[in-house]
Amino acid sequence: MNVAVDAMGGDYAPESVVQGAIEAVSGLDIHVTLVGHEKAIREALGTNRTPDHISLHHCEGVVGMDESPLKALRKKKDSSISEALGLLKNGQVDAVISAGNSGATLAAAVLSLGRINGVERPGIASILPTERGPVVLIDVGANVDCRPAHLLHFGVMADAFSSTCLATKNPKIGLLSIGEEGTKGNELVRLARELFDKSDLNFVGNVEGRDIFTGEVDIIVCDGFVGNVALKLSEGVVKMMSRLIENELKSSILGRSARILGRKPIGRFKRRLNYEEYGGAPLLGVRGIVIICHGGSSVKAIKNAIRSTAGYVNDRVLEKMRFRLEDYKP
Amino acid sequence: MNVAVDAMGGDYAPESVVQGAIEAVSGLDIHVTLVGHEKAIREALGTNRTPDHISLHHCEGVVGMDESPLKALRKKKDSSISEALGLLKNGQVDAVISAGNSGATLAAAVLSLGRINGVERPGIASILPTERGPVVLIDVGANVDCRPAHLLHFGVMADAFSSTCLATKNPKIGLLSIGEEGTKGNELVRLARELFDKSDLNFVGNVEGRDIFTGEVDIIVCDGFVGNVALKLSEGVVKMMSRLIENELKSSILGRSARILGRKPIGRFKRRLNYEEYGGAPLLGVRGIVIICHGGSSVKAIKNAIRSTAGYVNDRVLEKMRFRLEDYKP
Repeated sequence: MNVAVDAMGGDYAPESVVQGAIEAVSGLDIHVTLVGHEKAIREALGTNRTPDHISLHHCEGVVGMDESPLKALRKKKDSSISEALGLLKNGQVDAVISAGNSGATLAAAVLSLGRINGVERPGIASILPTERGPVVLIDVGANVDCRPAHLLHFGVMADAFSSTCLATKNPKIGLLSIGEEGTKGNELVRLARELFDKSDLNFVGNVEGRDIFTGEVDIIVCDGFVGNVALKLSEGVVKMMSRLIENELKSSILGRSARILGRKPIGRFKRRLNYEEYGGAPLLGVRGIVIICHGGSSVKAIKNAIRSTAGYVNDRVLEKMRFRLEDYKP
Repeated sequence: MNVAVDAMGGDYAPESVVQGAIEAVSGLDIHVTLVGHEKAIREALGTNRTPDHISLHHCEGVVGMDESPLKALRKKKDSSISEALGLLKNGQVDAVISAGNSGATLAAAVLSLGRINGVERPGIASILPTERGPVVLIDVGANVDCRPAHLLHFGVMADAFSSTCLATKNPKIGLLSIGEEGTKGNELVRLARELFDKSDLNFVGNVEGRDIFTGEVDIIVCDGFVGNVALKLSEGVVKMMSRLIENELKSSILGRSARILGRKPIGRFKRRLNYEEYGGAPLLGVRGIVIICHGGSSVKAIKNAIRSTAGYVNDRVLEKMRFRLEDYKP
């Protein structure tokens, strides 16, 4: 098992990526190939000795977080993300993880690996915590303008992913809309609903924004614009609430005491909602296992992403997704 | 000042609506006309004497929360929402409030009052709490499929509303997208951005989901599908977090003590995020002041909605919006 990690990708790269890789391989049978500028990686390692279960693959280029993906990829043929995907294509590694420019990862993955037969548009699946376990939200940003069939494919791929990698039996799939009735929603959702109704998926109908975090469905399908807004909004609300609670508690003597006493339970609560615990977001629909991590990924987030990715490889999710998609070929 | 309230609209109508009206008029120079079935309203009042500053307008019909708006309006000519809007059209009241079927309120308002010149699509503006004061999110559900000009009009109307009724000086307007750059977003947003760039509004560019609750902009414009998902998602996240904190605190002795000590600060925090404090959502773009309340509105929510609506009437927001829209006539 060998996972290539884009050592140059992310707001805290290469330090947090390198450290996350070291922690991930510790005690487990995982090998990580750090892809990026050797000098920068060696500096982050703090030693010239390469740790056990880690290897380096040097390349010069880096796609910046704010660069235009396609332009950057054309200009920098040897960027860390392209090189990492090259290793995957050639069978030298089993998966690729990047916390770098997600548009570039998406574009490079499609260009380099190609799409699974029958998939017009790969989608990014975000795994979110709920009170009852994880929910998969797809797509969270790969496709901003979708056709109904794209949404159906997202559902099929997430179904294969969820049942394989998250061990969810016969996952319940909901279509994100603004009312439960099939007549509600925009044109895209109304047409997609007809496709879902005809499918053999465990489709439970429309769900609303408020249902995303109840855990009543296992998979929520939407276009990448809506999904990205929803994902970032959730992050924003959680942050605001955490700050507000802290401030309210700090502002009174009783509150300060409560804050000290409640430190552990409040800590547990924050962890339950922390994306760091849940690894990265798989890009479903390309011919390879590619995981997109949050740009602000910490050491812990990278570590967990590597470990869950190793699980996806073991679960042979790719073959299962291909097999599942056979039924939905146009 | 006379505000018509749809006494039959809402999950807890007529009881909570009637009680909310009684509390709203107490001590203030506001008159409320309760529109609905007289017998039901009298029962909710618990007396045959009509309280001061309250009057009744009897009608037979009610549009149910789950009825198809247009069908119900066609069938029930004398529904409470149609009757209330009739009073507004005839100048007998100054504004209409309903916590009933929001699709029916929207459709009836457009049919009965008509649109302000230059407005193709009225939009529902939700006023949300942030750490720095209220933010206006428009549209939250009136229009699920929009054209770029509709988004511009939402911005213009919210600008007039925010500067008049919320006393925000030169409100900062952001367009909800999935990246700050103008090239990011779906086709609708990219085209709308060009219109905003050319406008004389205080347009600050694209904002993302995580920016909705930071309070850095005063107005956030989006189509009604995205806005409705965002609104309901925020509600869902706040509820889930409140439950999770409660559960974590309940599950340990220290946590239980913290919960008792922290009751007041945590209560303050919940109130800050409670829609009940913020009244209803104005429907901007129709020829009259119409406020749509949450279906689950409590007594307090109705009371606050009536009081803030009285403020909008006093601020003469309608005239100011008409005046502002003159500049944007097609």
